[in-house]
Amino acid sequence: MVAVRSESDSMGPIDVPADKLWGAQTQRSLEHFRISTEKMPTALIQALALTKRAAAKVNMDLGLLDNTRGKAIIEAADEVLDGKHPDEFPLAIWQTGSGTQSNMNMNEVLANRASEILGGVRGMERNVHPNDDVNKSQSSNDVFPTAMHVAALIAVREQLIPQLNVLKATLQGKADAFRDIVKIGRTHLQDATPLTLGQEISGWVAMLEHNLKHVEDSLPHVAELALGGTAVGTGLNTHPEYAVRVAKELAEITRQSFITAPNKFEALATCDALVHCHGALKGLAASLMKIANDVRWLSSGPRCGIGEIAIPENEPGSSIMPGKVNPTQCEAMTMLCCQVMGNDVAVNMGGASGNFELNVYRPMVIHNFLQSVRLLADGMESFNEHCAVGIEPNRDRITQLLNESLMLVTALNTHIGYDKAAEIAKKAHKEGLTLKASALKLGYLTEGEFDAWVRPEEMVGSMKQ
Amino acid sequence: MVAVRSESDSMGPIDVPADKLWGAQTQRSLEHFRISTEKMPTALIQALALTKRAAAKVNMDLGLLDNTRGKAIIEAADEVLDGKHPDEFPLAIWQTGSGTQSNMNMNEVLANRASEILGGVRGMERNVHPNDDVNKSQSSNDVFPTAMHVAALIAVREQLIPQLNVLKATLQGKADAFRDIVKIGRTHLQDATPLTLGQEISGWVAMLEHNLKHVEDSLPHVAELALGGTAVGTGLNTHPEYAVRVAKELAEITRQSFITAPNKFEALATCDALVHCHGALKGLAASLMKIANDVRWLSSGPRCGIGEIAIPENEPGSSIMPGKVNPTQCEAMTMLCCQVMGNDVAVNMGGASGNFELNVYRPMVIHNFLQSVRLLADGMESFNEHCAVGIEPNRDRITQLLNESLMLVTALNTHIGYDKAAEIAKKAHKEGLTLKASALKLGYLTEGEFDAWVRPEEMVGSMKQ
Amino acid sequence: MVAVRSESDSMGPIDVPADKLWGAQTQRSLEHFRISTEKMPTALIQALALTKRAAAKVNMDLGLLDNTRGKAIIEAADEVLDGKHPDEFPLAIWQTGSGTQSNMNMNEVLANRASEILGGVRGMERNVHPNDDVNKSQSSNDVFPTAMHVAALIAVREQLIPQLNVLKATLQGKADAFRDIVKIGRTHLQDATPLTLGQEISGWVAMLEHNLKHVEDSLPHVAELALGGTAVGTGLNTHPEYAVRVAKELAEITRQSFITAPNKFEALATCDALVHCHGALKGLAASLMKIANDVRWLSSGPRCGIGEIAIPENEPGSSIMPGKVNPTQCEAMTMLCCQVMGNDVAVNMGGASGNFELNVYRPMVIHNFLQSVRLLADGMESFNEHCAVGIEPNRDRITQLLNESLMLVTALNTHIGYDKAAEIAKKAHKEGLTLKASALKLGYLTEGEFDAWVRPEEMVGSMKQ
Amino acid sequence: MVAVRSESDSMGPIDVPADKLWGAQTQRSLEHFRISTEKMPTALIQALALTKRAAAKVNMDLGLLDNTRGKAIIEAADEVLDGKHPDEFPLAIWQTGSGTQSNMNMNEVLANRASEILGGVRGMERNVHPNDDVNKSQSSNDVFPTAMHVAALIAVREQLIPQLNVLKATLQGKADAFRDIVKIGRTHLQDATPLTLGQEISGWVAMLEHNLKHVEDSLPHVAELALGGTAVGTGLNTHPEYAVRVAKELAEITRQSFITAPNKFEALATCDALVHCHGALKGLAASLMKIANDVRWLSSGPRCGIGEIAIPENEPGSSIMPGKVNPTQCEAMTMLCCQVMGNDVAVNMGGASGNFELNVYRPMVIHNFLQSVRLLADGMESFNEHCAVGIEPNRDRITQLLNESLMLVTALNTHIGYDKAAEIAKKAHKEGLTLKASALKLGYLTEGEFDAWVRPEEMVGSMKQ
Repeated sequence: MVAVRSESDSMGPIDVPADKLWGAQTQRSLEHFRISTEKMPTALIQALALTKRAAAKVNMDLGLLDNTRGKAIIEAADEVLDGKHPDEFPLAIWQTGSGTQSNMNMNEVLANRASEILGGVRGMERNVHPNDDVNKSQSSNDVFPTAMHVAALIAVREQLIPQLNVLKATLQGKADAFRDIVKIGRTHLQDATPLTLGQEISGWVAMLEHNLKHVEDSLPHVAELALGGTAVGTGLNTHPEYAVRVAKELAEITRQSFITAPNKFEALATCDALVHCHGALKGLAASLMKIANDVRWLSSGPRCGIGEIAIPENEPGSSIMPGKVNPTQCEAMTMLCCQVMGNDVAVNMGGASGNFELNVYRPMVIHNFLQSVRLLADGMESFNEHCAVGIEPNRDRITQLLNESLMLVTALNTHIGYDKAAEIAKKAHKEGLTLKASALKLGYLTEGEFDAWVRPEEMVGSMKQ
Repeated sequence: MVAVRSESDSMGPIDVPADKLWGAQTQRSLEHFRISTEKMPTALIQALALTKRAAAKVNMDLGLLDNTRGKAIIEAADEVLDGKHPDEFPLAIWQTGSGTQSNMNMNEVLANRASEILGGVRGMERNVHPNDDVNKSQSSNDVFPTAMHVAALIAVREQLIPQLNVLKATLQGKADAFRDIVKIGRTHLQDATPLTLGQEISGWVAMLEHNLKHVEDSLPHVAELALGGTAVGTGLNTHPEYAVRVAKELAEITRQSFITAPNKFEALATCDALVHCHGALKGLAASLMKIANDVRWLSSGPRCGIGEIAIPENEPGSSIMPGKVNPTQCEAMTMLCCQVMGNDVAVNMGGASGNFELNVYRPMVIHNFLQSVRLLADGMESFNEHCAVGIEPNRDRITQLLNESLMLVTALNTHIGYDKAAEIAKKAHKEGLTLKASALKLGYLTEGEFDAWVRPEEMVGSMKQ
Repeated sequence: MVAVRSESDSMGPIDVPADKLWGAQTQRSLEHFRISTEKMPTALIQALALTKRAAAKVNMDLGLLDNTRGKAIIEAADEVLDGKHPDEFPLAIWQTGSGTQSNMNMNEVLANRASEILGGVRGMERNVHPNDDVNKSQSSNDVFPTAMHVAALIAVREQLIPQLNVLKATLQGKADAFRDIVKIGRTHLQDATPLTLGQEISGWVAMLEHNLKHVEDSLPHVAELALGGTAVGTGLNTHPEYAVRVAKELAEITRQSFITAPNKFEALATCDALVHCHGALKGLAASLMKIANDVRWLSSGPRCGIGEIAIPENEPGSSIMPGKVNPTQCEAMTMLCCQVMGNDVAVNMGGASGNFELNVYRPMVIHNFLQSVRLLADGMESFNEHCAVGIEPNRDRITQLLNESLMLVTALNTHIGYDKAAEIAKKAHKEGLTLKASALKLGYLTEGEFDAWVRPEEMVGSMKQ
Repeated sequence: MVAVRSESDSMGPIDVPADKLWGAQTQRSLEHFRISTEKMPTALIQALALTKRAAAKVNMDLGLLDNTRGKAIIEAADEVLDGKHPDEFPLAIWQTGSGTQSNMNMNEVLANRASEILGGVRGMERNVHPNDDVNKSQSSNDVFPTAMHVAALIAVREQLIPQLNVLKATLQGKADAFRDIVKIGRTHLQDATPLTLGQEISGWVAMLEHNLKHVEDSLPHVAELALGGTAVGTGLNTHPEYAVRVAKELAEITRQSFITAPNKFEALATCDALVHCHGALKGLAASLMKIANDVRWLSSGPRCGIGEIAIPENEPGSSIMPGKVNPTQCEAMTMLCCQVMGNDVAVNMGGASGNFELNVYRPMVIHNFLQSVRLLADGMESFNEHCAVGIEPNRDRITQLLNESLMLVTALNTHIGYDKAAEIAKKAHKEGLTLKASALKLGYLTEGEFDAWVRPEEMVGSMKQ
């Protein structure tokens, strides 16, 4: 038998576990939404606490909330931010689409805790009200979108971008280190003209640079906060200065560039900022998938694949094949990239499905958004540490393949024309000859000309690495 | 300081927590794949244990594994199946794409535990070998796909289908109960000809019936098991009777219709069975989204919407608007349907990306598959219990809207032709008249004719409800 | 100056080109929906004509339409079916979501043409009415879904399935022909234990067999026809026998298994049958993507890739690299598979977005569905004819790679255990030795034992090809 | 019998229609890729011609191409740009994934046409060479990506953005015009606190403003051109100044901000710029879907829906229900938004699937990209012209619903607290009372207080419209 206390809301009384700070509405949500295992993410809970803290501060500053209760609410919020109440936010993603129940969860926990801080009790005799005090000047409809943006911006800036930069730096280092290793190029999976391994990797660096730019460009919209719009965007029951002040307060305590949304109706009725920002994330996923695939193909083998590079051997690869080593970091990366692309569709559908003054797909949208950030950030960190830093060229293999390639013939185009060059290559392919042997047999050039013109190291140009 | 013991694999020794049963490869995976929070699902772990149990049994029967160790492995597997080792399977979804590390996690736990059961130790001095004994006649490449199918089939049959049937029955009851309530139909969101509320709901029942058929049709492929294919599908290192026997054993202990896959190369190289089966799940999601949307629109209001039905009021709907009640079960349902559709894209991409003898997107695929099943099953259960069972008609509102509708004019088509009927409706709309007043003003028919011909209750036909 | 005549509908008169058979509503749609270039597919237009033909026949049989006009409508419909009026159906996909405008397009063309057949005029003095005669017992809301199912079922049965069977037969022939060619297997892109080329290809055959089953299982739902439901599913303004009779008539003239939908509300309010059937198509796309990727990787090179098979050289591969040949059929196939997966998302979203009595995403859904069928059917035909039939093994290359592989060591597991076998493979890898040399150096077995135990041709088992 | 001439390429001779300018490689593609009906878009063909024109100019300037042939190539390209050869580019999207065949199509047409311009013949005796002259300093691998970016940037700037601005301006005009019309708000589809119709529409304007920003931010990457990278990105066979000069030339003739891509390896190996830019397009689609849905719900009825606004009646809505008018522009818009979201998945998959030095999903990617632009641009134009400009408020209906709403009670929160306010609303709902009657019955405030505090026109705040 769990000890309980009775809490009430406008639906009437309901028992809640006595040792929990949450109240009636949290309890109802727990009972009505026993759906799967995905819980409201901690980052979102923290962002809700930040929002409540900022609102209490501004409410006090504007004389709307007495200092005693205001300070107690702030202290309670700080406890949440310090991780002191990890078990008080048990609600599922699959609840009301506005996140109201999680907003009320936070309101109830802070009200009960603030009451205790003030020497009062938790429960209906508390001296801080979840709605009238903690939620003052607020509605779930502006609080939850605000918390979504706060959590999203922080996650992108503090998790994703740093790891993106680390991986980019690692690959830049490889591009520099391997700038002079001439290797065969491949287009359509078929042998093509040569380039250096450094050039090949420089393409990956350029991909990450562009993605960084795309992600950063998407953030100003995310930095716009709905807070101050309250129920439908009109700011009903708020002070005229509230919206601007509370955004400023949130910017200060998070040291992020938050501003109040110029149009609150857009901020409540859509998830557009996150739909677009996730579009940048799916672009990053597309790039990482390409990079990870290149790495595993280039390291394929060891004897029956391409084998031009070696990657770290981190663990045994097979439960049946002794000595097998697999490109497992690449596999984790490509799997999570698929997930991000799937998440993008879920986010798009939720984002497109708002009606009138509110989008009610919010918990699902932020769940996917934060998962995508986490997957990409952690995935890049893991891939960097356990794979990218250890990429090394297999120089013998690279040289062997380079010398066998028929596509060095391209260097002859400007000397003898495409048609004769093609003839040389085809003859070599058909008869199993070297290019030079084929060229000489056909009599299109002398051995001296061949040696002077077909020089892989001069075919790699001077393109930026 | 956590006490440790040293375990070894082909990479060498590594410390693992002394109180854990897992071994070297699990430990390596933990350290190399610190990616996000998604862990290998319990249902998959259970399916792995079932697979190991069945393999040990058949290995003993075929004389490939001595009875002492075989029985100890079975006992250890039964402990896992009884939930006795919940903390021994800590690996992430984002690991090697073959699931090898989770297969080895199970092999290591069972080997150490079986050794203890036999009075031996855990660790390198154990007398049961993770690969040579527990994994005998197996490879991750056939074990993991087998466990995926076992977990998937059980989840669909034991979670999804029962809840689908419950919701279908509830809605069938509503269709029957409301079979005589004539209401306005709506097409393009615009008023249309009438039908009964029972007929409208009968459409939802028919949707679920078709989905049930689709899901069931997709299961025979899922019931095909890869086990016996070992490393690449050839069955290397297995007894000729092993594949058939082990599928039969799994069928018996799960009481499901498992058979050995007729082609093991397909079973290892693809996730096609789950790609297709998830296609049936996304179809169900599309249907549930439509049903949930209909329910929330029909119950919209209470005063400024459609309001033809009432749904249970489960919790306060707003932190700022007193007395507001929202269709939250519908919102949870539509959110999770978006998730299932996003998951479908992730599954498709993973399924399409196999190479040669193995698909290495397996943990991601089964993660999404099982999540979709759980979301749909739990979502239907919650929607049924907290919403569908409580759907009630608002008879006054239904009658009011029915009588106001202009589309009853359609009944006149067969009497006076489409063009004149259109004229009557347009005049009524333009001048704010009733249909009858408009008809009489235009002189196209008598009042008696109107009353005889325009009878909503005779416009609803006899279509199956 | 184009000659015009005046046509009217309930909105009033409008000029249409005098040489065209269409009427007022088609003209309005042309003017109001100048959106992109995608037109209503011919297959759908044909299915509409079939529907009108069947309805006219049944209307006559039931005494609802006089024989003169009925026969003229049938004759006009037959002209359309014979391709005599290719320029009379100019409407865009991006029109009303019910397809009403295309239904009216057909009604107008048939009314005017039937009038001419009867010696009358086209235009408002015609003696056959688009709504009262051609559309008798019908509504766009049942006609358009019916035409969608008719077009879809015919396309799947007559285009997709035959090409699926042809490709399957070609690959089965290759699997048989190459049954004895032992080659190295690859898992995680890394060398694995051997299998035969025939076994490898047998996996592709099994994939296509399963897909065939999935597609066929999805067709009974598609064979259900909405016709007879009219405006909202109640069958208003139809004869009690009409629905069953008209489905039977359509079954007869198309020689397909059409039946009247058991629940017309589902048939009008959803696109569920096509959502699910397209789920089978996306599964086929996933399979074909894997097969096409395997083919291009296996044929990669010619000198710096895997190169185990040769595929037909159909065209020069490069505008700059002479003599280059690319796996272009594989590329067309993988591109179109991506398209089918994108189409699936569009279909899902449309399918999930119906409201009340009607789904209004119909033209978009059928556009995507028929495009997917066309892409897959034509894609398989092209891939079969220009690639699959010409697949040949490069026996020397296959043998060379097989002999170099370290994973033959797996055969030793059952003789000396996994750990020692791993030691042999690792030493060989590290020191660049052959397996045998490594094994002997380590002293774990004799040369005679090695030769007796490591025999690739005995490692490929007897698995079905 | 069609007259033919023989053309040759490195595969040998092949007959082409004598009246066509194309050559051997175009002909081979036509025969090998009979897949579906989607052809290379005209915008891409034009972009290819622009690229060839710019390359010829720069080749002449750098002394790499003699002026006679160079000028003839330019003249031939100008003919293509003037639309003089519409039937010369018949190739399918579903061809080689590099677009090589369309590049060769252009090379062959320009070579033959330039030869004729110079008084020579078409065919193998021509005096301008498709590869050595027209394709000089180029490879399909840099030409085709360049043409993709050229076509994409022009389409976005000249089609999409102008229509986005037009629709935004129309909606801004409506927001201004309706700024004082107070109406009920709706959240969760349930009645909420009031706002003005102008405020509601201002949210749509803000959505479009943000989308405009997102789209524009995505363009700098698209403005980077691959040209100069040739076969694999190294710039083999080009002059050191070529890449910069040719981008400058393309910028001048298109008056767009093109620059040479800083890293050519990224430019060839990925479609990242278009993947990201299409991410902005899918965001716009999500926004437009929401706007179109709001418009059709607000105009639903006419008597049994919400009916707060009227939209233009453009065409009869039903073939069976006389006088019915439907929100068809909204339907076209929502359908095409689904298509854009589906296209996004296809683009993502193609973008993620590049290998090594080249992405070979290019024709599919540009096909989807240009279709999405066209759909969105035309869709916004149509929606604007035939729907948005005609949106008008139904003032009586708006007022009626506003006065009935119970959510005006929210204004009492700050006076009597959330709990008592909730009690008032619930009693009114339950007993069918007005808010005022309920409030007075409960005795929580006086009639004078009620009238002073509950004033909808003062509840709409001063939020930016």
